[in-house]
Amino acid sequence: RMTEAQQQGNDDLGAVAAHASMRIPVVAPEDPVDGVIPALRGRRFDSAAVLAVCRGERLVGVLTVERLLAAPQGASVRQVMNPAPTTVAPGAPQERAAWTAVHHAEPALAVVDGDGRFAGIVAPQRLMAVLLAEHDQDLARLGGFLGAASAARRASGERVRLRLWHRLPWLLVGLVGALLSAGVVGAFEAVLERQVLLAFFVPAVVYLADAVGTQTETLIVRGLSVGVPVSWTVARETVTGVLLGVVLAGMALPATWWLWGDAEVAFAVALALLAACAIATLVALALPWLLSRIGVDPAYGSGPLATVIQDLLSVVIYFLTATAIVG
Amino acid sequence: RMTEAQQQGNDDLGAVAAHASMRIPVVAPEDPVDGVIPALRGRRFDSAAVLAVCRGERLVGVLTVERLLAAPQGASVRQVMNPAPTTVAPGAPQERAAWTAVHHAEPALAVVDGDGRFAGIVAPQRLMAVLLAEHDQDLARLGGFLGAASAARRASGERVRLRLWHRLPWLLVGLVGALLSAGVVGAFEAVLERQVLLAFFVPAVVYLADAVGTQTETLIVRGLSVGVPVSWTVARETVTGVLLGVVLAGMALPATWWLWGDAEVAFAVALALLAACAIATLVALALPWLLSRIGVDPAYGSGPLATVIQDLLSVVIYFLTATAIVG
Repeated sequence: RMTEAQQQGNDDLGAVAAHASMRIPVVAPEDPVDGVIPALRGRRFDSAAVLAVCRGERLVGVLTVERLLAAPQGASVRQVMNPAPTTVAPGAPQERAAWTAVHHAEPALAVVDGDGRFAGIVAPQRLMAVLLAEHDQDLARLGGFLGAASAARRASGERVRLRLWHRLPWLLVGLVGALLSAGVVGAFEAVLERQVLLAFFVPAVVYLADAVGTQTETLIVRGLSVGVPVSWTVARETVTGVLLGVVLAGMALPATWWLWGDAEVAFAVALALLAACAIATLVALALPWLLSRIGVDPAYGSGPLATVIQDLLSVVIYFLTATAIVG
Repeated sequence: RMTEAQQQGNDDLGAVAAHASMRIPVVAPEDPVDGVIPALRGRRFDSAAVLAVCRGERLVGVLTVERLLAAPQGASVRQVMNPAPTTVAPGAPQERAAWTAVHHAEPALAVVDGDGRFAGIVAPQRLMAVLLAEHDQDLARLGGFLGAASAARRASGERVRLRLWHRLPWLLVGLVGALLSAGVVGAFEAVLERQVLLAFFVPAVVYLADAVGTQTETLIVRGLSVGVPVSWTVARETVTGVLLGVVLAGMALPATWWLWGDAEVAFAVALALLAACAIATLVALALPWLLSRIGVDPAYGSGPLATVIQDLLSVVIYFLTATAIVG
């Protein structure tokens, strides 16, 4: 059971224009507040949370219903309106618009086109539906589900056949990646035969690089969806990824050396860990950006696709390092 | 830069009562609509999105400002109010309350205590701040960050030192898990020495079981946070997990047999895959439930902790199966 608002919040990467309504109160800056309130009586609005203050087609301010009610006797709309409201363009991604509204503590959001023409108000119910739908969608991407249907709905009632259908596609991509990873390890059979100790650390290196990469993915996908460009953060994230690799490698080196007593293998593990963490960070930075460039939801870069790519690269890096040091 | 609304949405697992306000319009069911509107003039409200219709301390209905304005001349509040509004208890988790509001397309939500006493209205801006904060928090848990600060804020501006501080703790847990996994593989050194081919499929089995488990985790954590009990879904999720294991094993068996030409290893990989997918599903079901039972945010069960546990179990299952079949 889905409300209309939820369905309408669900459009994949939709523009905010689809949520804007013109069936809202529109007043002029000169209007006296004492005349505005009686004039709203008997009219049907999609939302009366915010009044648009317009001169012709141009938005010159907004006025919340709370400020309207609290206005002193005899005040004009201009005296109590917010003359510099937060606005978004009609083509703005719906999630970014909703985030903007919350960030500026606006109950509803005004949409204004490139020529300054007022294009409607997005009601609070719609903003909430968008926030909820985007949350469900981000989790669907992270979890590796097909589509963006509500995870909660899925959790509560969906039948087994539908569950399989939503989950298998990404797992089959994963199966191909898994067979590739077996092929990669196989390519290094000779070094494994010489030093079986190397096999011990494959899950460790893969897991840790994956954990570092997942952190960056989460950050980038969230940042992109609310309008933070990847470029703002590339330098700091890369430095952080390398430093995390250094710390993990610096702790893994003495631990593996002490526990397994082989200096060469310990060095190979530590060096591979450092390189794999750095590469996982770069993949996590590059993949969502690449996806958004080709028009695909960057959140796909936070799910099983990124994990497969990072895992394969980690295995390659580990065995190349091992071959160089041990082999 | 954080707005007050965002800060207030950020309380970890907070109850909705913290967001409810009594500074909202309260009217009686007998009041004439034509008298209500002038009476609201000159008063300051936290929100006028919804009027509470009360008889004494009891809430008997709610009335949106839109329905108030649209009411016909001469109508009483009772005639236009919603006499069966969606309400929540003061102790309801904030995220569940916000989800309830969106689900019922309510712009604001009435809070009513166990004795039927009206305890305030949660304004739309607050509901939005809660939805946004919970989204950020879910992603922080999934990504393995400390705390629940906005991932977008972190992506845009946080310094490297703070980034390390938020990310290292879970990675250190991961490092311990990684060393344990090396110990587990080491315990099966004998079978690895006899059949080095077994080492090829360690990342494959770990990756696929992890992917299946991540899907279930996402579902459960989302379901729990909006009030779907785990018990509703255990049977279907378990069946789904086993069936996914069957499908993946059924495809992996001929593929590995054909590609690597060893029937025993192919059977070991397929059987381990089936078992690991089933176990990963059970861990993903049990962990969030256990965490919520001990008062910890169940969303921690969707992050690096679950992954470490699943990876360790997958490695154990794989080598036990391999030892039984190959060894």
